[in-house]
Amino acid sequence: MGEQAGDHSADAAPTGELAFIRWLRRRTGRHLQMLLGPGDDAAVVRTTPGRPCLLAADMILEGVHFDLSAATPAQVGRKALAINLSDLAAMAARPVAALVSVALPRGRAAALATETLDGMQALAEEFHMSIVGGDTNSWDGPLVIDVSVLGEAGPNGPLLRSTAKPGDWILVTGTLGGSRAGKHLDFTPRVREALLLHEGYHLHAMIDISDGLSTDLHHILEESRCGAELRADAIPISDAAKNADDGRSPLEHALHDGEDFELLFTTPAEQAREILADPPLRIPVSKIGKITSETGAWMVDNSGARHELLPHGWQHAFDG
Amino acid sequence: MGEQAGDHSADAAPTGELAFIRWLRRRTGRHLQMLLGPGDDAAVVRTTPGRPCLLAADMILEGVHFDLSAATPAQVGRKALAINLSDLAAMAARPVAALVSVALPRGRAAALATETLDGMQALAEEFHMSIVGGDTNSWDGPLVIDVSVLGEAGPNGPLLRSTAKPGDWILVTGTLGGSRAGKHLDFTPRVREALLLHEGYHLHAMIDISDGLSTDLHHILEESRCGAELRADAIPISDAAKNADDGRSPLEHALHDGEDFELLFTTPAEQAREILADPPLRIPVSKIGKITSETGAWMVDNSGARHELLPHGWQHAFDG
Repeated sequence: MGEQAGDHSADAAPTGELAFIRWLRRRTGRHLQMLLGPGDDAAVVRTTPGRPCLLAADMILEGVHFDLSAATPAQVGRKALAINLSDLAAMAARPVAALVSVALPRGRAAALATETLDGMQALAEEFHMSIVGGDTNSWDGPLVIDVSVLGEAGPNGPLLRSTAKPGDWILVTGTLGGSRAGKHLDFTPRVREALLLHEGYHLHAMIDISDGLSTDLHHILEESRCGAELRADAIPISDAAKNADDGRSPLEHALHDGEDFELLFTTPAEQAREILADPPLRIPVSKIGKITSETGAWMVDNSGARHELLPHGWQHAFDG
Repeated sequence: MGEQAGDHSADAAPTGELAFIRWLRRRTGRHLQMLLGPGDDAAVVRTTPGRPCLLAADMILEGVHFDLSAATPAQVGRKALAINLSDLAAMAARPVAALVSVALPRGRAAALATETLDGMQALAEEFHMSIVGGDTNSWDGPLVIDVSVLGEAGPNGPLLRSTAKPGDWILVTGTLGGSRAGKHLDFTPRVREALLLHEGYHLHAMIDISDGLSTDLHHILEESRCGAELRADAIPISDAAKNADDGRSPLEHALHDGEDFELLFTTPAEQAREILADPPLRIPVSKIGKITSETGAWMVDNSGARHELLPHGWQHAFDG
């Protein structure tokens, strides 16, 4: 315990953690904010004075969150970092550094270490951040990857879930549903989009859609103590959701599937109109409804009927 | 994925992650530097402007690093945080915040979550830091706990492994060896001692002894590109090492056992003399040898004979 590891690659894999760390250190990306990378007891990072630090972590487990017969180790590694970057995006924060802790199945350890870190490192480079350390272990269990990230807020500070206001319009980036058909392995976390929106417009509340629109909307509503009314015909449905052939409607997929990793945000009507009239992003932004003072979430269908929208997305039940 | 959890306690355990997070949030310690705790996509922390951030992570695995028949969940939780605080101490950094990710064995999940976090929370309070978030999962595997910490450097910056100089005296806090007899479960990370030493004296290099004196000394020597000569009769040997009855000598225990979590540091002779003449800490500090320009580590025994000191402590081999 105590060694900080980071970085990756496709050379012959070294054996033994000290050898692995030496090899990692030669390959770690050097970014301005990383003062000291892997190899000491802790990494040293410079953040911008006066900017709050954002911290998040996500652990993924072989057999629970991923299956190495359905995804390559590089895809799994990339996703382990990407879901964390999506959490930073949800707060409109810029990623600075990541720590990566892994439990590696003995026998496959060296190959899995290098390949998963390969996938992560490519994404880290894309977002100009560094993998500054972590911890490597081997055991007789399945692959476990826990990534924690440090981000920093932009000049307007972090954007919370708890600050939606009645009358806000509810907007969403991209299209929703069917992510498990493939997008969940190669999505681009909406970091750039979140920073651009939060710097250019007065947003009120934001979350990333990881658990499903219905569930993540409820997170905003619960934290902000308000309600919402959505229009069924306004939900942007992905092609994957339209092509799903499992008896559930495309709309149901879009409402509940999860792992879209798009941004769901609220903003006063006049700001929303500006965003929609002159879209600032290269991806679509859609108005899907409004925040109400009456609590609860409601969906108005194409016939004008109003149904309660319950959170049927992913629930992190951990017992039972 | 995406929820930030933290804190703990001994109430009736809630089921379901959303319920768990609500319960955690009511109990999270409020420290000045925590602007936003568990419950949003990321936690928000304020660090001192101009002070570099320190980042470290350590993952511990049931059956590899701990055994729930030999330690309570609270002890395991406490240790998971304590080893990270020891890493910050080794850099002379002050702990600010921790993220805790857990994989909880199904059936024992709620009880293990609350008890391990109980142990952590007590230690976090002691060091005036916050558990600001993390990730909770359940699965059919063993208990996995990954803690990552954010610290900040003091006014003299972080203290590295790589800056020992020939002529430095080598000092160590406390006594060494036999930690597995009990100390490894209740040690106090030397955070306060490291801060006090680094602010009061001109230290050159520091590490915490997690892998064993012989191995951790080699980390300093390798990073600093120098050597060391130790005196066998100067090594402070713990009572646990003296009482061990396994055929290995007390000195061997002190040199190689690991998990002492004491500070090993180097400082110019005149600084070392000041520290030893007027000890600033409530725990003992011992001079155990000197840094040399000749590489390699050597031990002078009681008869004056010189033996090479090889790193026989814990090696993090992760494959084979």
